[in-house]
Amino acid sequence: MTGVRAPLRIGMIGHAFMGAAHSYGWRNAARVFDLPFEPELRVLAGTDLGRATDAARRLGWAEAADDWRDLVERSDVDVIDICTPGDLHRPIALAALRAGKHVLCEKPLANTAAEADEMVAAAAEAEARGIQAMCGFTYRRQPAVALAHRLIAEGRIGDIRHIRVRYLQDWLSDPEAPYTWRLDAARSGSGSLGDLGAHAVDLAQWLTGERITGVTARTRRFVPRRPLLDGGTGEVTVDDAAHAIVEFRSGLLGTFEVTRYALGRKNAFAVEVNGSTGSLAWDFERNNELLHYRGDEGALSGFTTVLATHEEHPYVAAWWPEGHTLGYDAGFVNQAADFVRAIADGRRPEPSFADAAQVQRVLDAVETSEETRGWEAVLTEKERMR
Amino acid sequence: MTGVRAPLRIGMIGHAFMGAAHSYGWRNAARVFDLPFEPELRVLAGTDLGRATDAARRLGWAEAADDWRDLVERSDVDVIDICTPGDLHRPIALAALRAGKHVLCEKPLANTAAEADEMVAAAAEAEARGIQAMCGFTYRRQPAVALAHRLIAEGRIGDIRHIRVRYLQDWLSDPEAPYTWRLDAARSGSGSLGDLGAHAVDLAQWLTGERITGVTARTRRFVPRRPLLDGGTGEVTVDDAAHAIVEFRSGLLGTFEVTRYALGRKNAFAVEVNGSTGSLAWDFERNNELLHYRGDEGALSGFTTVLATHEEHPYVAAWWPEGHTLGYDAGFVNQAADFVRAIADGRRPEPSFADAAQVQRVLDAVETSEETRGWEAVLTEKERMR
Amino acid sequence: MTGVRAPLRIGMIGHAFMGAAHSYGWRNAARVFDLPFEPELRVLAGTDLGRATDAARRLGWAEAADDWRDLVERSDVDVIDICTPGDLHRPIALAALRAGKHVLCEKPLANTAAEADEMVAAAAEAEARGIQAMCGFTYRRQPAVALAHRLIAEGRIGDIRHIRVRYLQDWLSDPEAPYTWRLDAARSGSGSLGDLGAHAVDLAQWLTGERITGVTARTRRFVPRRPLLDGGTGEVTVDDAAHAIVEFRSGLLGTFEVTRYALGRKNAFAVEVNGSTGSLAWDFERNNELLHYRGDEGALSGFTTVLATHEEHPYVAAWWPEGHTLGYDAGFVNQAADFVRAIADGRRPEPSFADAAQVQRVLDAVETSEETRGWEAVLTEKERMR
Amino acid sequence: MTGVRAPLRIGMIGHAFMGAAHSYGWRNAARVFDLPFEPELRVLAGTDLGRATDAARRLGWAEAADDWRDLVERSDVDVIDICTPGDLHRPIALAALRAGKHVLCEKPLANTAAEADEMVAAAAEAEARGIQAMCGFTYRRQPAVALAHRLIAEGRIGDIRHIRVRYLQDWLSDPEAPYTWRLDAARSGSGSLGDLGAHAVDLAQWLTGERITGVTARTRRFVPRRPLLDGGTGEVTVDDAAHAIVEFRSGLLGTFEVTRYALGRKNAFAVEVNGSTGSLAWDFERNNELLHYRGDEGALSGFTTVLATHEEHPYVAAWWPEGHTLGYDAGFVNQAADFVRAIADGRRPEPSFADAAQVQRVLDAVETSEETRGWEAVLTEKERMR
Repeated sequence: MTGVRAPLRIGMIGHAFMGAAHSYGWRNAARVFDLPFEPELRVLAGTDLGRATDAARRLGWAEAADDWRDLVERSDVDVIDICTPGDLHRPIALAALRAGKHVLCEKPLANTAAEADEMVAAAAEAEARGIQAMCGFTYRRQPAVALAHRLIAEGRIGDIRHIRVRYLQDWLSDPEAPYTWRLDAARSGSGSLGDLGAHAVDLAQWLTGERITGVTARTRRFVPRRPLLDGGTGEVTVDDAAHAIVEFRSGLLGTFEVTRYALGRKNAFAVEVNGSTGSLAWDFERNNELLHYRGDEGALSGFTTVLATHEEHPYVAAWWPEGHTLGYDAGFVNQAADFVRAIADGRRPEPSFADAAQVQRVLDAVETSEETRGWEAVLTEKERMR
Repeated sequence: MTGVRAPLRIGMIGHAFMGAAHSYGWRNAARVFDLPFEPELRVLAGTDLGRATDAARRLGWAEAADDWRDLVERSDVDVIDICTPGDLHRPIALAALRAGKHVLCEKPLANTAAEADEMVAAAAEAEARGIQAMCGFTYRRQPAVALAHRLIAEGRIGDIRHIRVRYLQDWLSDPEAPYTWRLDAARSGSGSLGDLGAHAVDLAQWLTGERITGVTARTRRFVPRRPLLDGGTGEVTVDDAAHAIVEFRSGLLGTFEVTRYALGRKNAFAVEVNGSTGSLAWDFERNNELLHYRGDEGALSGFTTVLATHEEHPYVAAWWPEGHTLGYDAGFVNQAADFVRAIADGRRPEPSFADAAQVQRVLDAVETSEETRGWEAVLTEKERMR
Repeated sequence: MTGVRAPLRIGMIGHAFMGAAHSYGWRNAARVFDLPFEPELRVLAGTDLGRATDAARRLGWAEAADDWRDLVERSDVDVIDICTPGDLHRPIALAALRAGKHVLCEKPLANTAAEADEMVAAAAEAEARGIQAMCGFTYRRQPAVALAHRLIAEGRIGDIRHIRVRYLQDWLSDPEAPYTWRLDAARSGSGSLGDLGAHAVDLAQWLTGERITGVTARTRRFVPRRPLLDGGTGEVTVDDAAHAIVEFRSGLLGTFEVTRYALGRKNAFAVEVNGSTGSLAWDFERNNELLHYRGDEGALSGFTTVLATHEEHPYVAAWWPEGHTLGYDAGFVNQAADFVRAIADGRRPEPSFADAAQVQRVLDAVETSEETRGWEAVLTEKERMR
Repeated sequence: MTGVRAPLRIGMIGHAFMGAAHSYGWRNAARVFDLPFEPELRVLAGTDLGRATDAARRLGWAEAADDWRDLVERSDVDVIDICTPGDLHRPIALAALRAGKHVLCEKPLANTAAEADEMVAAAAEAEARGIQAMCGFTYRRQPAVALAHRLIAEGRIGDIRHIRVRYLQDWLSDPEAPYTWRLDAARSGSGSLGDLGAHAVDLAQWLTGERITGVTARTRRFVPRRPLLDGGTGEVTVDDAAHAIVEFRSGLLGTFEVTRYALGRKNAFAVEVNGSTGSLAWDFERNNELLHYRGDEGALSGFTTVLATHEEHPYVAAWWPEGHTLGYDAGFVNQAADFVRAIADGRRPEPSFADAAQVQRVLDAVETSEETRGWEAVLTEKERMR
């Protein structure tokens, strides 16, 4: 009976961590949600056909390929899902959009703001032809985070006065941890900034509904060289940690900190927002919990720990009964479902390439501020066009 | 490329909450783990063909059926997965085992100890023919719980002195919550006892590695009648809550409490074990965290919050990098994988029907103790056979 | 300027842990609260004059003594505060009340229910002469606990359905921990029961506003002999742990567990109450926090962590601004203030000797149930008098 | 027997919140700790004799006064304790030191770095005469914080890579909260900076053992005018919130955020330090808990929650048995004891006026950076003298 709904044929490029997570999303989306299309895991591409073939079998794709250029042209593929290192995002996305494929591109959108701008232009041109493009900031799809967004949008915490975001990991804390493409600026664009900071900036802008307009920042590189897997050492050319004070359009200030050296913090992506009538706080390491302070209630005041598993919470009605928690992977299932629906409805999915390019501009300003030690403005696309 | 591994064809009966959860497990098991067989969601049976057909499409089954009697005889089915109300567990399991199908039966194994004993006998007989049977106590497959089991088995907390288990929910707290089959003893056997208490007893016996040999208990029914969905009211014939003090083989005492009336506790299945050299504590509402006290370490003593997402933790290496949490559903994926491997290896899966029958005997003793207000011994199968 | 208020002259017997804590209370009560009398730390008695003299200097008492019989007769003493082992509670309290002294007696009130009954009679007789008697269940005076009591009394959580109490410590977990008077039934009456269970029972009865009417229980002794400080070993004649299911007047059931062998739990006195419209939870190890669930609030439901430092919370207005936590010792300051005010107002302080004797009867029933393995009724004083 | 030890006669100026807290410290210090001197609460001064007299009676001082100039000259006073608004710190401290009195000055040391420098010079001159001066950064005396300091000093977390400090309150969040001297720069010097930021900077420098050498910062004023208690409104001339990125001598970066507008955070003074081999975290709202990550321990890795009530923890042996928590006030008792011992030993107490002046220089740099929007160096006293 599978297949009663029209298929939406996916071609995915990349089969490492993100490839596995996106596969999980495509595989389960139509089983959890009632979707207008049935995602079909059509073809998985990698750089090596043997490894891609193994990955396709393991992750459940019908076919494997080794040249993304062929893939984006195939007539039996409707969606291109980009899970490669950052340096390939731009060329693949441009080719896919040109070929009339909907595009889901993993974050960060690009390695530089300039690349991102090209992609935004291509997405705009494609949108006019009914082709959709989305960037994979998947943490937006954690129910507790989506609930925070809804509560803020409904005005439940009033005017925002503070936002503090930290995204702490520790996997590079050991100086002997090996060199990978993520430490090579040519492949990854940046280090903690693009990997963690991109999520931090996206979530901050999405939750507040405001753009960041200026930044002062400092970054750090703790370990300059690391062992290569095949001997010798490689030079780390990316940041290990970044700290920023940011200003949003309304004037509100926020604080950011991202690092891969916070021992004991495994994936501690934490956000706290203080408004004029309430506050919200969330930490991914307890991803099902949203802390909510409703303002002064006298002797009953305090933060409420909302277990974000209630049927009224975003995404949850499609999952399990209350109290049955979701994991990291649920974000990818929710993301796939959202993208499928946007395609079916012919409306722009969020976060758009334009949203993601704005994130890239903030990250660029952080790097500039590290050089100048001064305050750097972040222009929006429109402002830059003037 | 899917299908390179030989298929293991599943026939499942029941498509409510547990049916959806088991489907999730079968669908993802071979995508997360490298399994010797590829589970195939062959046919889904319900009592109504139309609803079963809808469910099959939604949950990803190739075919639907409406008579479990046919299903257990089909030659294109290797495994029967029982997700029905408790009153059907015995007849389906007996028929399926007789027909040479491996059986996964959702908990509680049966509505009475007598039924359970029949099933144990059938499973033993089938095992001699190479057919496996397992009961679905899925919480054993949460990584934090499996880690607790491993640490205890390794002697990390010494001799166990205390175990306290509570499984608290609140979905019946509202007296206007509607009547369902779960409140009808004829269908469900018991209330909080079979639903929550079965999990509590199974986990306690598994973690400690000991059988419960005696119990004193009290149960409660708070709301005697509830509204039927089609008007009128139905009589609640099951327990709403149960409290017990239990003794294990070695003499250690434990405390149990299960209820569906603990407002605010959504799925608070919590276990704490104190040993002679350390302690462990876990609460499903923070399912990725295991608290571990390593004994007296002077000024550094305290409970360590282990985020059970480390590659050395049970099941985790197959999932995501450290810090990326798992949800309730992961337990079903892990369970399906364990069952597939046991079938492939020709070894008895755990928890066996015998394990589950012992749980049932403890639940029966709780009910007897409520009547007698006295201490009730719980005999093992062997002891009863003498 | 100290001394403008009339003095209330205290004579205290015992200068170990409780003596120090009570001294702390007397010393600070009139500095934190605006009291009608000024407590004066007049004389401190012990069994050895030298050690009592040292303690008096250290704890701030004007004078030391070594015979409590003289002390209770002194004309310059208004209040006798009993901080001795349990076997002396009865003789001292009877003598002091007879001599017209107000009495604060540390818990447990007595070593047996029979002793407690004598003390209740003496207190009733004294009360007719304007003399007050109170038992020192100091946890009632932690602001978070007093707030819980107020919320329940105001009906904020509706009719109570569950109460679960555990009081866990671990200081006897090491089998080499030395023998003390607390392990000798002749001195202390019982072990974990009188030490921890008394607090558990008192709080449960006070919070619910109901008497316990029946109990089934099991106790344990894990280590039968322990090293004496001066060589050899002493026989442990008290319980190490106790577990009980209790029934209250209204029929509600509760669960209790107390132990000195829960490794890692240092003073984990935890209570959770579930009502028909809300829940409350508290754990002394985070003594300033009261968790409050207000019932179903849809997407906003959850436990609120009330930091019990708000000026509207019990006792707090006299202390520090919001957010400035209190410790264990604050309970003794609050207790001393409450007792001074009750004396000034000529009203019976709470918990009264009668309240404390009822606690003792519950503890006695626990011990009986351990012997009978059956359900034991707990009669109130009135019921027993019939 | 009180008074066997030689008295140390205290004269205190100011009797608001800090006056009450310091009184609590002096009253209990020699009762909790075995001190070489017995603090005597000799005389309490305020601006109004009537109110000072009331306060003296309430707080337990022998005498009241209304002119601090007389007080600092009195021959029956050994110590001057300054608990006034910041604008009086300098004149009182200078006069007291000149008159040969030991001085305890509440933080922040002064309203400007220039004032602070004068006080440092006076303290240095007095120290040569055997007179001691200390600044009241009392959070150093919370056992969990002092334990963190000890663990870092012992090298337990290796080289420090990150420190993040936030001190969040919410008492000004309501725009109708009344105007007080704390909002008037002429009286208080600054707002959240001097009140909260001073604690944050002091703790960061003390814990890391390093001086802050540069800063980039932004501050905010959310509510420009507030109601006066006697009608009309007053202009808020201080900062409401401040954010900073700071660099320490070794190059390590830290992030700071202080605010009085973080709704729901009552006194959330939180510090996290990540080192090359471990991490520590603390939040005053759970003041008895220190989180400690010991580095990679494989499957057992995680943050240990150390309940800082163990006899091996700083200050604790003098207080209660393990598990019996301390409150905010304990910090003042510990502080008084430390100061008495430093005086008796003739050694410089910590934090010294020089330590506190360095804090002031960091705060000044924050204000400058807000104006320049650039990176501001913070010179040490020695560097400025060159």
